Amino acid sequence: MLYLIGLGLGDVKDITVKGLEIVRQCSRVYLEAYTSILTVGKEALEEYYGRELLLADRDMVEQQADEILKGADVSDVAFLVVGDPFGATTHSDLVLRALNAGIQYRVIHNASIMNAVGCCGLQLYNFGETVSIVFWTDTWRPESFYDKIKKNRDMGLHTLCLLPIPSLSRGRKIYEPPRYMTVAQAAEELLEILQNRRDRGEELAMTEDTVCVGLARIGAEDQTIRSGTLQELASCDLGGPLHSMIISGHLHPLEVDMLKLFSGPERLKTLKMTDSSTYVS
Amino acid sequence: MLYLIGLGLGDVKDITVKGLEIVRQCSRVYLEAYTSILTVGKEALEEYYGRELLLADRDMVEQQADEILKGADVSDVAFLVVGDPFGATTHSDLVLRALNAGIQYRVIHNASIMNAVGCCGLQLYNFGETVSIVFWTDTWRPESFYDKIKKNRDMGLHTLCLLPIPSLSRGRKIYEPPRYMTVAQAAEELLEILQNRRDRGEELAMTEDTVCVGLARIGAEDQTIRSGTLQELASCDLGGPLHSMIISGHLHPLEVDMLKLFSGPERLKTLKMTDSSTYVS
Repeated sequence: MLYLIGLGLGDVKDITVKGLEIVRQCSRVYLEAYTSILTVGKEALEEYYGRELLLADRDMVEQQADEILKGADVSDVAFLVVGDPFGATTHSDLVLRALNAGIQYRVIHNASIMNAVGCCGLQLYNFGETVSIVFWTDTWRPESFYDKIKKNRDMGLHTLCLLPIPSLSRGRKIYEPPRYMTVAQAAEELLEILQNRRDRGEELAMTEDTVCVGLARIGAEDQTIRSGTLQELASCDLGGPLHSMIISGHLHPLEVDMLKLFSGPERLKTLKMTDSSTYVS
Repeated sequence: MLYLIGLGLGDVKDITVKGLEIVRQCSRVYLEAYTSILTVGKEALEEYYGRELLLADRDMVEQQADEILKGADVSDVAFLVVGDPFGATTHSDLVLRALNAGIQYRVIHNASIMNAVGCCGLQLYNFGETVSIVFWTDTWRPESFYDKIKKNRDMGLHTLCLLPIPSLSRGRKIYEPPRYMTVAQAAEELLEILQNRRDRGEELAMTEDTVCVGLARIGAEDQTIRSGTLQELASCDLGGPLHSMIISGHLHPLEVDMLKLFSGPERLKTLKMTDSSTYVS
């Protein structure tokens, strides 16, 4: 049996009881090491599970899946994924290869960033399509994520923006310093896009004053949530990875009350709204 | 401290290790009993946790929150929620009341239906707004959920449809037999809406042959996933609660491969697509 087991988002104890029991009885345990990271490292997991973990980078999962699946028809192999195995990245390919080789699989679910962002108080069923923001280079500055945000906002929906995380897999073959995108960097790109669109005379779907939420290390002890205008988030410091950001759509009064918890004491009383999702100071 | 703890979706062992440790050391433990249900009952949870659980129905949470929060400023109180505490239903109101009373809170996340549906192979970031389907009566037959599905499909996005679950709270005061909606019933309502819209000469966003997915008891040992046309799902029997349904949008080839796993052996080979989300037999 191939077990795909979600580890949740924080530390070693965010695995489910069921997941932990399976990890402890499997013959081999792989740790998927390219989609996301926990706030603790492989060593902490190994110590807590009492098991050696085999690191599975992207190349291994894509090109040497047979190695992972070896013997899983007669014994149990666990494949650990930060968050949920079918969260932001799915592992359909590994599942299909397993079934093709006559190996059954089972999924042990856990929280992923896709549902845990609900902790900021914005309701999950009011989110539209999720977008991914990428690091711009001098020559590659895609703006397509803004167009998706626009569509969501036109329907009054919130947008979860997933930000780049450190690449732990590619770095071995091609040198690429591990880096993650901060909320401030994501906000900066978005501000530049707004200016570009304004220069072109486009009607904007949002402004520098639109309510946004920055989230860092969700699920961990030191998680940080900051709500404010897009302009404010462009200069916020939410600490270490992983970060994500939400662009609000239409806000329900209860959602506004929750967001006020995360806007900093100095803004708590002065916060006003001109429409359902724009601050005035 | 008020702890809001997600229980996940299946049975007693889907709680996280962290969540279990907290439950075992809290002075009082409430079980939220109206948003969702596990495949096991309160007694099974009590036996596994070694703790008595206080049932918190909707009236209690909405009108007697003070009772839940009593003493949580000096001791620890746990509030257990099936799925994730900020999943399909948020508990913002309880959080705000706690903070108002000077009580800190902490969220222990877990899988919810909002992210666990990814196990069918449809990618979570290709979903649009989530919709809720309701039981029609003779006089109340809302079609608004179809319009949201239409908007999602126009953008190529999948739609998660949440179906009614047994009401465990209201039944005490007003007699209402506990019932949940099956995938077949949800599909029936949707078929009727398609016919209504066709009669009115509207251009349809989907047809009886659009690829849909029925999901039952996701996360439990006996979870069942069935993919097929809307017409086919209208006559499927996926067993006991809880059910949910997905209306597909644009399908990626890897998503199609995953859906074929759930379409029954007789269709595995004959499945074809006319466009990215319509079967032909």
